[in-house]
Amino acid sequence: MPNFERSEYLQRLAGTKARMDAAGIEVLLVNDPANMGYLSGYDAWSYYTPQLLIVVQDEEEPIWLGRGIDANCGLVTCFMDPANVLGYPDHYVQSTERHPMDYMAAFLTDRGWGGRAMGVEMDSYFYSAAAHASLKKGLPNAAFKPADGLVNWVRVVKSAQEIEYITRAARIVERTMNAALENIVPGVRQCDVVGEILHTQVSGTPEFGGDYPAVMPLLPTGEWSAAPHLTWSDRPFENGGGTAIEIAGCHRRYHCPMARTVCLGEPPQDIRDKAAYVVDGLEAALAAAKPGATAEDVEAAWRKAIAGSGIEKESRIGYSIGLSYPPDWGERTISLRPGDKTVLQADMTLHCIPAIWLGEWGIEISECFRVTERGGVPFAEVPRELFVK
Amino acid sequence: MPNFERSEYLQRLAGTKARMDAAGIEVLLVNDPANMGYLSGYDAWSYYTPQLLIVVQDEEEPIWLGRGIDANCGLVTCFMDPANVLGYPDHYVQSTERHPMDYMAAFLTDRGWGGRAMGVEMDSYFYSAAAHASLKKGLPNAAFKPADGLVNWVRVVKSAQEIEYITRAARIVERTMNAALENIVPGVRQCDVVGEILHTQVSGTPEFGGDYPAVMPLLPTGEWSAAPHLTWSDRPFENGGGTAIEIAGCHRRYHCPMARTVCLGEPPQDIRDKAAYVVDGLEAALAAAKPGATAEDVEAAWRKAIAGSGIEKESRIGYSIGLSYPPDWGERTISLRPGDKTVLQADMTLHCIPAIWLGEWGIEISECFRVTERGGVPFAEVPRELFVK
Repeated sequence: MPNFERSEYLQRLAGTKARMDAAGIEVLLVNDPANMGYLSGYDAWSYYTPQLLIVVQDEEEPIWLGRGIDANCGLVTCFMDPANVLGYPDHYVQSTERHPMDYMAAFLTDRGWGGRAMGVEMDSYFYSAAAHASLKKGLPNAAFKPADGLVNWVRVVKSAQEIEYITRAARIVERTMNAALENIVPGVRQCDVVGEILHTQVSGTPEFGGDYPAVMPLLPTGEWSAAPHLTWSDRPFENGGGTAIEIAGCHRRYHCPMARTVCLGEPPQDIRDKAAYVVDGLEAALAAAKPGATAEDVEAAWRKAIAGSGIEKESRIGYSIGLSYPPDWGERTISLRPGDKTVLQADMTLHCIPAIWLGEWGIEISECFRVTERGGVPFAEVPRELFVK
Repeated sequence: MPNFERSEYLQRLAGTKARMDAAGIEVLLVNDPANMGYLSGYDAWSYYTPQLLIVVQDEEEPIWLGRGIDANCGLVTCFMDPANVLGYPDHYVQSTERHPMDYMAAFLTDRGWGGRAMGVEMDSYFYSAAAHASLKKGLPNAAFKPADGLVNWVRVVKSAQEIEYITRAARIVERTMNAALENIVPGVRQCDVVGEILHTQVSGTPEFGGDYPAVMPLLPTGEWSAAPHLTWSDRPFENGGGTAIEIAGCHRRYHCPMARTVCLGEPPQDIRDKAAYVVDGLEAALAAAKPGATAEDVEAAWRKAIAGSGIEKESRIGYSIGLSYPPDWGERTISLRPGDKTVLQADMTLHCIPAIWLGEWGIEISECFRVTERGGVPFAEVPRELFVK
């Protein structure tokens, strides 16, 4: 049932343990669902309640510890021996008297790890301030070290099997983008278009199904273009406006994101011109994304290509992607922006999305790509242009 | 654009301020997206980065503060004066050098609130240990108090407009459950059924569209029944097995959840018998859910009705529902379980889901209901039975 061979999980763990060693961490407490899945295979909708993957420097397998009924999900999805998949009792769940982290702390103490150097992902989504306070209280002898990004950086270079999953996700995003482009017509409600998008995202292809994406479909449109993280409404699409479509295909939690923009009716010439620059910039960035280039080199190539366009952009133009869970499909490692000196390696996978917002117009045209000697090779094929209907 | 009248938001704020007063809190920092939406109208897919709603005892309106581009979402969805919707600069986003909470702390200090009694939702999903550490560091003179549940408890009794939104969600969940029941047939892949479910959830009805539910569709089936939070796979449904369907309709973030169970082929007599008990128990719970009864009284009515069935259940049989965001649609307040002495009031809304798992069989038959003088009145109408195809 796990999505990868045992040997691949052990290799990932070896990479993690090397970083733990360098950081002086003996016991790593992984709570980020993507990092947890990466190292163990664990996959379930159970991050509504605290759960941990415990990686101990001198133990071959990690231990998954979460809610009792969710340990059953671990038995199905994790690569480990069932003895390393454990649950806490149900009276810890959403209790005002006790916290699941009290149980975790007692467990770590019982195993003799309570006084060791303990790495914790302090800034991950589902690791609350209360969880950390409870853990610290239960482990007075532990030395805590922040371990944000530790596992994330192990994830940046993809294996052949991971590339295969992203490639499948690309087949799904192609179908999904085409469904979105087809369904956005004047008078059709946003919710109906998103219904089609989700249907296609999840049904996938006849060969392989889709998974839920880490971000719901985003369709900033018309006067709401400057608010790109608004989700959809019941309002119909209107003639004359532009709509940016930001979606992903997802397969076994691996994402292939993509953005395209569609205009219902002829856009102003300025928007056409800017869109042409966006495409040129994107292609320049792709061409620059070879092993040995830095993340900021890729951004610089983009910036050079759009010089003279009048486009200004404060935020990054891309980021590393792969395995992820809501609420974000980025890996939180590499950013294509000035100052990011990460040296690109073959088989890193990134999403280059130089989105720009111009009052009532948003232009989003992006590619999810693999770093190769030939530059960044997009996973999906959908015409790289401003669509006008 | 906000989903409620200004007067309703002000009433919610008054209820919140009364609880703040009782708890000795002068400034409440709301980070739970549902609580934030409840008090301000704010609604966007932006909880991937820190954001706060700041409720100050002696200010009429709260202040929304989050990422700059997401302040634009606040201008569209919040009821407040635009001067009370503010953004932080983009270089705070996913930076390794600075944390958005550094900015928040400086903002609170600038406003003169830095030394006041500060309520914080310590255990909410998107309030990380690092966020709290950064805030504390930036506000050395503040007195922090945990405020978990404070706003949640204001939410438990629904207004007429909230009841209307849940009623619309009920129309959506009826369609969606019927789509699920129709599509689950031997040989059809799980992902294809979930594609239909999501399509129906989001398209909604011709009169009103659906929103994304706080939990993705869960379809524990056959040998995986004991792992109810596994999400779907590409495997086809098989003859002879049972599948539990746990979904919700959602409209403007208000949920109407529902579970039903379908068997492909005749189930064992024991399963039929147990399912009949589950329905009897559910109906006994509904009958008991009148104003004045306690949450544990409702559970006791269920327990009495299933006596002699052989059913044992450790976890709660229900919880309060309404406005919510991923990863959970519960309100984290009332639980239908022994020891919960909350006195029910008219127009509270709960999901009664006495789910049981028996090896390879899960039986989930639930209702989302409103507390009335006549007992709990379900919002949706789908036959309350074990479906056999």
